[in-house]
Amino acid sequence: MSSDPQLDKLKFDDNGLVPVIVQDHGNGEVLMMAYMNLDAIKKTIATGKVHTYSRSRGRLALKGETSGHFQLVKEIRTDCDLDVVLLKVEQIVAACHEGYRSCFFRQYDAGAGDWKVVAPKAFDPDSVYQQQKK
Amino acid sequence: MSSDPQLDKLKFDDNGLVPVIVQDHGNGEVLMMAYMNLDAIKKTIATGKVHTYSRSRGRLALKGETSGHFQLVKEIRTDCDLDVVLLKVEQIVAACHEGYRSCFFRQYDAGAGDWKVVAPKAFDPDSVYQQQKK
Repeated sequence: MSSDPQLDKLKFDDNGLVPVIVQDHGNGEVLMMAYMNLDAIKKTIATGKVHTYSRSRGRLALKGETSGHFQLVKEIRTDCDLDVVLLKVEQIVAACHEGYRSCFFRQYDAGAGDWKVVAPKAFDPDSVYQQQKK
Repeated sequence: MSSDPQLDKLKFDDNGLVPVIVQDHGNGEVLMMAYMNLDAIKKTIATGKVHTYSRSRGRLALKGETSGHFQLVKEIRTDCDLDVVLLKVEQIVAACHEGYRSCFFRQYDAGAGDWKVVAPKAFDPDSVYQQQKK
C-alpha cells in the first residue's frame, strides 16, 4: 500500500514493476520506454523528475543523473488495464544515452540488411559521459 | 531465425516477446501498449495491419479483429537496445476496447481519490462488441 489510492490501483507485474512510456509533452515524440516500481513512481511524483527502476542495476535511478538530461513530468496517465504508465515530460537535451533525442532513432527499412538511423544526434555521448569512460 | 536480418537483431525476452508501443502517426497520440512475438511482427509487416501476441489468450491476435478497428502500419521503429518496438499507425475509429481513442484516457489527479478520465468516448463498446456480450 502506498497511502495514495490512485497508485494502489496500478497493477504491477510479478517483479513489482510496471512498464512506463515517456513522451515529449510538446511534440508528442515517444522518447523511451522504461520500468518503474512503486517507489520510483512515488519519487517521480514527489520530485517532478522521472525516476525509473533499473533492472540491470537493480535499483532506483534518476533519469539524467549523470548527464543532467532530466525529464520534468507534466502529466501522468495510465491505460484501461491500469498496468502501463504514460508520462508526458519536458525533456532536457535528449533522452537517449547514445546521443539521440529519442531512443527510437532506428526505423525498419523493408528489404534492407539493417535498421536505418533516421534521427540526427542531439549531443555527443563521448563528451557527456566522459567520466564514465574506461 | 526469421530470414529477415533486421528482425533477427531484435531482443525478445525469456517468453519470446517484445513490448510494442502503438502511436497515431498523425497526431502523435500514444494509443496502446502490447506485446509481440516474432510471428506477430512478421504478420504485421506482411499484412500492414498490427498483430499482437495476446498473453491472456496465448495466441496471435489481429488488432481490430472483432471491432473492425484496425491499425494500419505507417512506420516501424526500435530503440537503442533493440528490445522495444514503436509502431506509427493509422488508427481506424479507436484503439481501446472501452470505447476511447487511446487506452491512456486516465490521468493522475494529485490529491484525488481516483484517476480522472480525460478523454471523450469515440464509440459505444456495448454496441460494437454486442455479439460477445453474455
